Amino acid sequence: MMRNTTGHIFTLTTFGESHGAAIGGVVDGMPSGIDIDLAFIQSELDRRRPGQSRLTTSRNESDQVELLSGVFEGKSTGCPIGFIVRNADHHSSDYDNLRDLFRPSHADYTYYKKYGIRDHRGGGRSSARETISRVVGGALAKLALRSLWGIEIKAYTSQVGNICVDKSYKDLDLSKTESNAVRCPDDSVAKQMEDLIMEVKKDGDTIGGVITCVITGCPAGVGEPAFDKLHAALGASMLSINAVKGFEYGCGFAGVTQRGSEQNDLFVNADGNIRTASNRSGGIQGGISNGEDIYFRVAFKPVATLLQPQPTVDVHGNATVVNPKGRHDPCVLPRAVPVVEAMAAITLLDYCLIS
Amino acid sequence: MMRNTTGHIFTLTTFGESHGAAIGGVVDGMPSGIDIDLAFIQSELDRRRPGQSRLTTSRNESDQVELLSGVFEGKSTGCPIGFIVRNADHHSSDYDNLRDLFRPSHADYTYYKKYGIRDHRGGGRSSARETISRVVGGALAKLALRSLWGIEIKAYTSQVGNICVDKSYKDLDLSKTESNAVRCPDDSVAKQMEDLIMEVKKDGDTIGGVITCVITGCPAGVGEPAFDKLHAALGASMLSINAVKGFEYGCGFAGVTQRGSEQNDLFVNADGNIRTASNRSGGIQGGISNGEDIYFRVAFKPVATLLQPQPTVDVHGNATVVNPKGRHDPCVLPRAVPVVEAMAAITLLDYCLIS
Amino acid sequence: MMRNTTGHIFTLTTFGESHGAAIGGVVDGMPSGIDIDLAFIQSELDRRRPGQSRLTTSRNESDQVELLSGVFEGKSTGCPIGFIVRNADHHSSDYDNLRDLFRPSHADYTYYKKYGIRDHRGGGRSSARETISRVVGGALAKLALRSLWGIEIKAYTSQVGNICVDKSYKDLDLSKTESNAVRCPDDSVAKQMEDLIMEVKKDGDTIGGVITCVITGCPAGVGEPAFDKLHAALGASMLSINAVKGFEYGCGFAGVTQRGSEQNDLFVNADGNIRTASNRSGGIQGGISNGEDIYFRVAFKPVATLLQPQPTVDVHGNATVVNPKGRHDPCVLPRAVPVVEAMAAITLLDYCLIS
Amino acid sequence: MMRNTTGHIFTLTTFGESHGAAIGGVVDGMPSGIDIDLAFIQSELDRRRPGQSRLTTSRNESDQVELLSGVFEGKSTGCPIGFIVRNADHHSSDYDNLRDLFRPSHADYTYYKKYGIRDHRGGGRSSARETISRVVGGALAKLALRSLWGIEIKAYTSQVGNICVDKSYKDLDLSKTESNAVRCPDDSVAKQMEDLIMEVKKDGDTIGGVITCVITGCPAGVGEPAFDKLHAALGASMLSINAVKGFEYGCGFAGVTQRGSEQNDLFVNADGNIRTASNRSGGIQGGISNGEDIYFRVAFKPVATLLQPQPTVDVHGNATVVNPKGRHDPCVLPRAVPVVEAMAAITLLDYCLIS
Repeated sequence: MMRNTTGHIFTLTTFGESHGAAIGGVVDGMPSGIDIDLAFIQSELDRRRPGQSRLTTSRNESDQVELLSGVFEGKSTGCPIGFIVRNADHHSSDYDNLRDLFRPSHADYTYYKKYGIRDHRGGGRSSARETISRVVGGALAKLALRSLWGIEIKAYTSQVGNICVDKSYKDLDLSKTESNAVRCPDDSVAKQMEDLIMEVKKDGDTIGGVITCVITGCPAGVGEPAFDKLHAALGASMLSINAVKGFEYGCGFAGVTQRGSEQNDLFVNADGNIRTASNRSGGIQGGISNGEDIYFRVAFKPVATLLQPQPTVDVHGNATVVNPKGRHDPCVLPRAVPVVEAMAAITLLDYCLIS
Repeated sequence: MMRNTTGHIFTLTTFGESHGAAIGGVVDGMPSGIDIDLAFIQSELDRRRPGQSRLTTSRNESDQVELLSGVFEGKSTGCPIGFIVRNADHHSSDYDNLRDLFRPSHADYTYYKKYGIRDHRGGGRSSARETISRVVGGALAKLALRSLWGIEIKAYTSQVGNICVDKSYKDLDLSKTESNAVRCPDDSVAKQMEDLIMEVKKDGDTIGGVITCVITGCPAGVGEPAFDKLHAALGASMLSINAVKGFEYGCGFAGVTQRGSEQNDLFVNADGNIRTASNRSGGIQGGISNGEDIYFRVAFKPVATLLQPQPTVDVHGNATVVNPKGRHDPCVLPRAVPVVEAMAAITLLDYCLIS
Repeated sequence: MMRNTTGHIFTLTTFGESHGAAIGGVVDGMPSGIDIDLAFIQSELDRRRPGQSRLTTSRNESDQVELLSGVFEGKSTGCPIGFIVRNADHHSSDYDNLRDLFRPSHADYTYYKKYGIRDHRGGGRSSARETISRVVGGALAKLALRSLWGIEIKAYTSQVGNICVDKSYKDLDLSKTESNAVRCPDDSVAKQMEDLIMEVKKDGDTIGGVITCVITGCPAGVGEPAFDKLHAALGASMLSINAVKGFEYGCGFAGVTQRGSEQNDLFVNADGNIRTASNRSGGIQGGISNGEDIYFRVAFKPVATLLQPQPTVDVHGNATVVNPKGRHDPCVLPRAVPVVEAMAAITLLDYCLIS
Repeated sequence: MMRNTTGHIFTLTTFGESHGAAIGGVVDGMPSGIDIDLAFIQSELDRRRPGQSRLTTSRNESDQVELLSGVFEGKSTGCPIGFIVRNADHHSSDYDNLRDLFRPSHADYTYYKKYGIRDHRGGGRSSARETISRVVGGALAKLALRSLWGIEIKAYTSQVGNICVDKSYKDLDLSKTESNAVRCPDDSVAKQMEDLIMEVKKDGDTIGGVITCVITGCPAGVGEPAFDKLHAALGASMLSINAVKGFEYGCGFAGVTQRGSEQNDLFVNADGNIRTASNRSGGIQGGISNGEDIYFRVAFKPVATLLQPQPTVDVHGNATVVNPKGRHDPCVLPRAVPVVEAMAAITLLDYCLIS
C-alpha cells in the first residue's frame, strides 16, 4: 500500500502538512536527458498559489520550489528528484479552537478514527496544500510528455454552481483559459462564474463545479486492459484530489441514455491513418488509448470550510460550534485547474513509459 | 505494473479469454479461518451467467467454478486460492469474419496497436467473460467482510436509458433486487426497464444505464488519505469494469450546484456515538470511511456489439462492414450488478485489511 | 504485499498445495508475439519432477502442465497466461500422524503461528511442489529472454556436502550438466557427489550443497541503482526457494579478504567495445549489468525431512516423536537446478523489460 | 518498479546525490503515536558520518537531519515523514578529471549505459552518501520496533580481510560494539582489524569484510511464505547496500556440508513455551519468524576507490588513467554497521506491520 505514492514506473511520493516546515516530495522514474525548465515548474505552482486573485484565499504564500537532486547541468539524470516548498504564512493560532473539534465534512473525524492523533493546524495533512507537491510532479511530467511525445494537457473550469459552458472543448479556444481568474476559456461564461463566486463569498459560503480536461497527442496503444485501464487510472487520480466527488470520460453519465448505434465510434481511413469518425469514446477503448483526444470531466463539491458558524461535536461527543477564523476559498475550481492537469500528466506519463 | 492484478493486501489476479480453455484467477491474502461457502460462490456466478433471462445473451454456459487451493476442511488457510471456470459453449467460427476487422467501440483496434496480435474470438481477453474471475474473487471477499465485520454490499440497476429510479436507496427495499430480471428493487420501474430493453433488443441495438451500490456496516477509519483515498480506489475498481464511463459517490455531479452550507454533513452525538446528521458525503471524508453508509453510482454505456451491420475498416485500412453473428446482451446492467458488488467487495476488503 | 507474486513488469503469481487439486499460477506481462514452445516448457518441468532418478524422491508424478490462456495460434498475446498442473500421486494418509505435530526445521510451526490453521498434508503450501509453478514461469521467461536478447541461463550443482567442483564455470562444459543425475558438469566430481548422496540416503539422512548459476548475453544497462539493484533482486529470488540459506555473486564471501587493487575490474577497449579485463564483479556494478557474464552461487541446507525418528512437540507443547512415512529427497540439489534457472529467468526478464 | 523506494506498508523513498543540494527521503507508513526521539535519529547518523575516526574518509560533514513533516508535538501522526540532510563539504572540482572516465568497479559505466548521462561528482547518486537516508529511515523504524514489540537490532564488524571474530554472537557482549572505531565487540580482534585497515590505508588500498547482524525480540509469525520470505526480504535489503556481495542467514554457506540430522532444530517445551533447542535455522523457518533470534552475515567487498593510479578507458574507449584526488574510506565496514542495522529495521518493521 503506497499511501502517499502514486504511479508504477513514473512515481510521485508526497509529504507535508499545512503548518509544518515544508511541503515536498520525490519524483522517481523521470526519463533521463529531459531539459528541466525551472521557470516552467514555478509558473505551474504560481497557477495554484493562494492569493492570486480576489476569488481565492488571502493566505499569501510565494510557494517557491527548490529541486534538491536528480538534475545535472539542466537535464534530468534518471535519478529521483527530491523537492521542497517551505511553508511561510502560518497563522497556526487561528486554529487553536479547532484542536478538539471535528469540522463538518472535513477529514478531522476520519483522521482521528484512523490515527488516534492529528495535526489540527490548517487541516494538517488533509489540507489542499498537499497538492503543491502534485503540481511540481505534474510539471515535471508535462516536460517529459511534451518532449518525448508532444502530448499536451489542458484543463479548464466548465461549470461553477449552475453556470455551465455549453460548448464542447473543440469549440473553445483553450489558450484563453488563463485570461480570467476563474480559468474558463469562454469569457462571457467566466464573467458569470466570477459573479456567482463573489456572491457566494459574500455569504461566507462556498460553491462547487466541474473541471473539464483534454489530452492531445497521446499515441494509440497506451493503457492496460484489465484492472489498470487508462481511464480507471485517470479516474483514481482525479478522485484523489481533495473535494472531488465524480469522474466521467467520453460520453460519461449523459451517454447512458443513448443507444449503441448512436454512441459507437465508426473507424475510418483518414488519409492512410485509421481514425474514428466521432470520438464519443473519449480517446480510450478497452482501457487503451486509440490515438484520438482523451477528455474527461471532474466534479468538485463546495469546499467544506465556511465563514459561518456551524454546529458540531468535539472529541468527547459534546455539542459545540465551529467558528472558523482561517482564510478559505469560496470556490476551489480556479486553483484546482492546474492540479487536475498535474494529476493527468503524472498518470499519463506513467502509462506511456510502460507501454 | 500489476496489469491483471488488483489490490495490495487482498489481491485478485485474473486470466482467460472468451474462447480459451478457461477463465480463472488467484485470490491472495484471504484471511485464514473463514468458512468457504462454495454454494454461495457458485450462486454469485449464477447471477452473472449468460442465458439467465430473456434480457441477456443466449450464450448458455453453466460457468461452474472449481477452487484448486487455499481451502482446507472448509476453511481458508491464508494461502492463495486458485480457481478456474472452464469455457464450454464456444462458437468460435461465428467470429472468423472478425479476424481482420476492428469492431466499432470495441477494444479490437487498441489491442492490435498495443500488442500487435490479438485473439479475435469472442473479444478474446477484452470479453466481459473476464468478469467471471472478478465475481469469484468478490464472493470470497464478501465472505470475509461479512464474517469479520458484518459488512454487506448491495447493488441494483437504478437507471436504464432514461428510465430512472427516483427514490434514494434508503427508501427502497434492496432485498427485492433479485426479484426481477433487470435487478431493480422498484418493481414498477423494473417493468418499464424491461420493456425498454426488449424494445432495444428487437432493433438489434443496445442501451446503457446506471448501477447504484450501497455498502453498510463499514467501520470508521478505513481508507488512505492521499492518492489511495477509499473512494479513489472504489472509483478505479468500477472504471475497470467493461463499459463503465463514469463514477460518482455521495452527492456526485449533482452536488456541484450546491453551496457548502447545503452540502456539509453536521456531526451529532447519537446515543453516545459520533454520527453525521445527514450523509451527503457518501460515507467517506478525506478518503477515509466515517462509519455511515458508503454509496456510489456507476455509469455504463450501451454495449458496443450490435446486431446491425456497421461500417468499419480492416487492419489494412480498407473500408468494410461488421456483420456480427455472435450473441450479445442488449443491456449489460442486469448482469453487471453482481460484478459491481464483487469489485466493491474486493477493494473494500483490501482496505479493511490495511487499516 | 504481493505474497505469492514476484516481479513488477513480468510477474508470476503461484498457488497450490502438495495434496490439493492442483499447483498452478499466472504469468503476467509476457511480451506478445513470442513463440510458445510447449514441449520446452514440459521438458523444464521434467527436469524437476520427482522420481527421475534414484537420487530423488520416489513420489511419482508426471506433472503435466496445461496452459489455459494468453497463447493464440502458438504465440503469446501479451495477455496473462494461466496454467495448472494437477496433483496425482497423493498419499495423504501418510501424513495423518503429522496433523498436530511440528516437524523439526519445517514451516509447520511458523505457519501455525501465522495463520492459526494449516494443511498438514505433505507440507501443504510450504511443500517444494510450489516450485512447479516457478519452473513453468521460468520456462516462459527463458523463451522471451532467448528470443528477444539471446540471453541464456545455465545452473549446475557445484557442491554437495564437502564435495566441490574446484574449477570456474568458464573452465567447465556446461552442456554436460544434464548428462548425470546430480546435474554437475564435471563427470568425475558428479560421481563422487552421487556416491555421497546414496550414502546419506542409506542413513535416512540428507545433505546440503551449492548451485552455481551463469547468465550469458545480458546487455549492459539492466538493473536499478538503489533498493532494487539487479543482484538484490536475484538474491531475493534465490532466497525465496525452499532450503536456500545464502547467496553471493561475483567474488562473494571469499572476496572479503582481498584488497581493492586485487579485486577491481579494469576497463579495456576490446575491439571497439568497452569491456572489463577481469570479471570479479560478477557482471553487475552499482546494481546494473555491465555486459559481462552474471554469475552467482546459492547455498542449500540439507532437507529437513529425514527418514529417522526425531523428537519434537505437538500443538499442545507435549513431547512426541516424528516418524515420517512420506517419501523424500536425500539431497535437493539435482532437482533444484532448474528451479534456480527459472527464478533467475523470471527476475532477469522483469528487469530487462523495465530497462 | 519502485526504484528508490523499499517496503510495502512501511516504506522509505530516497533521493540525493553526493554533491547535490541535499540527501533526503520520505518515510511512509510510520505507525502513529510513536515518540520521535530526534536526538536518537541524529546519533544514528553520527555513527555513519564521515570523519568520525582515522579509519574513515576525511570528508567532514556534520550531516544534520531536518524532519519536515509527519511529527506533531513530538509524536508520529501516521502521515509521511519527509526529511533532508544538506550537503556541505563539496570538493566538486576534485572530480573534474572523472567527468569522462569510467572508474574501475564503480557504477560509472553502468549508469552511463542505463541513463546516457551521469552526475560524475563524487559518484553522484551511486555514492554511499545515499545511505544517509537509509539511516534516518532505519532510526525511525527502530523507534517503532522498540516501542511496539521491544525488538532490538545489533550489528557489528565480524571480519576485516582475514581477521575474524571466531565466537558466536551469543558469546560476545554486543554493548561493546561502539567502544572502538572498527565496531567490533571483541576488543583484541578489533585492535588487529584496525591495524590491518591502517596498513591498507597506507598503501592507498582498501579491504573488505563481513558484518554480522542479530535481531532479538521478534515474535513468531512474522514473514511471508512464498516469494516474500522474511529472509529473502532481509537478503535483498542487505544486497542493496553499496559494496555488498553476499548474504547468508542461520548456518548459511557453512551449513551445506552438514547432514539434516546435524542441522535440524528440535522443538522443545521450555517452561510452557514452544522453542527450539538449537537455532541453526537463524530464527526463520519457511520464510516466517519462529520467535528465536534472527541472525545473518553480510559480505562487503573492498571499496573500489583507491588512492592509487589505475588504468581505464574514457567514454570514447580511449585508454587513460584514473588518478583519484577525492577522499575515501580504506574499509567501509565500520561506517556500514549502522546502515546494516537500518536496513534490517526498515525491512522488519514493514513485515511486522503486515503480519
